[in-house]
Amino acid sequence: MDAAIKVFAERGFHTATVAEIAREAGVADGTIYLYFKSKDDLLLRLFDEKMSMLLLEMRAALALVGAASDKLRTFIKLHLSLVERNPDLASVLIVELRQSAQFLKMADRGKLASYVDLIAELVREGQENGELSQSIAPAAVKRAIFGALDELALGWLQSGRRANLKKTATDVSEWLVRGLLSAGGKS
Amino acid sequence: MDAAIKVFAERGFHTATVAEIAREAGVADGTIYLYFKSKDDLLLRLFDEKMSMLLLEMRAALALVGAASDKLRTFIKLHLSLVERNPDLASVLIVELRQSAQFLKMADRGKLASYVDLIAELVREGQENGELSQSIAPAAVKRAIFGALDELALGWLQSGRRANLKKTATDVSEWLVRGLLSAGGKS
Repeated sequence: MDAAIKVFAERGFHTATVAEIAREAGVADGTIYLYFKSKDDLLLRLFDEKMSMLLLEMRAALALVGAASDKLRTFIKLHLSLVERNPDLASVLIVELRQSAQFLKMADRGKLASYVDLIAELVREGQENGELSQSIAPAAVKRAIFGALDELALGWLQSGRRANLKKTATDVSEWLVRGLLSAGGKS
Repeated sequence: MDAAIKVFAERGFHTATVAEIAREAGVADGTIYLYFKSKDDLLLRLFDEKMSMLLLEMRAALALVGAASDKLRTFIKLHLSLVERNPDLASVLIVELRQSAQFLKMADRGKLASYVDLIAELVREGQENGELSQSIAPAAVKRAIFGALDELALGWLQSGRRANLKKTATDVSEWLVRGLLSAGGKS
C-alpha cells in the first residue's frame, strides 16, 4: 500500500500501472493480485484504510484539548501537519479526490464525511457553550474550512513542498478561529 | 457559447458533443466549426472570455468601495452572488477546473490568477493602512479564501442550488474579515 501511494503520487493514478507498484514494492505483479482485485480496488482500500487512520489520529488529538476554540485550532494545525508528514498520501487523496469523479462515485465517502464533520461538531460545541458566535451555520464553517485547508495543502504540494506549512497552519488557525469567537468569549 | 455552457454543465465537458451544442444553439454542426476549431478550443475560449468578464465586474464593484476590509467583504459576497446568478457557468468553471488536469495545462491561467490575486492585493492594502492585522501572509489568506469560496460554491451546486447562498455569503464574509481586523482597526 505504501508502494502504491508512492507510485500514484509520482505518476498519477490513471497513468500508474500495477507492474510499477509491484516493482516499487519489490514483489511480482501476481503478488499484488493476491491481495487486491485491481488498481481501482487498491485505491479504494488505500482510501478507506488511510481515512480511518487519519480519523483516529484526529479524534485522539482533539480528546486532549479542552476548549472548542482550541480544538478547532488543533484540527487546522494537525490537518496541515498530517499533509506535511505524508505528502505522497496527501497528494493522492487531494488530487484524486479532485480529479476523479468516478472514484468519488465508487468510494465509501462516509469516512471522509466523518472527518470533515468534526469541524461542524467543534463549531456547534463552541456555539452551545458560548465560546463561539452563533452568527454562522456550523455547516458553512465546515465547508469553508475544508476548502481552505484543501487549497492550502494543494498549493504547498504544487509549490514543491518548500513553504513553511507549519507557520501557515498556525497563522490560518488563529485567523479563522478569531473570526468565530463570540464578543464575550475568552481567548 | 451560452449553449456550450448549458450543455457542458448538464452533460460534463468530456461526455458533451459538438452536435449537442449545435442542437442547443439551434445551428448546424458545421456552423460551430466556423468559429471554434474543436470542443477543447470552445472550452478554452469560453474560459478566457468569462474570466475577463468576471474580472471586469469584480474590479468595477471594488472601485465603488472605500475601506480594504469592506472591499474584501464585497469580493466574497460578489463572488458567491456571481455563482448564484450563473450556476451553469460556475459549474463548468469549478468542476472543469477541478477535474481536468489537461485543461489546466492548456488554459491561460493568467486571468484566473489575476482574479484570485485581487484577494491578496486587498489584504496587502488593508495591512498597509492598518485596518488589517499583519500577522498573516496575504498569499495564505488568498489561497484559503479562494479554497473556501470554491468549496462553498461546489456544495451549493451539488445540493441542487437550494440553500440560501446570499445569507451564507454574508455570514462567511463577516467571519473571515473579522478574523483579519487589526486590534485597533475600525469595523
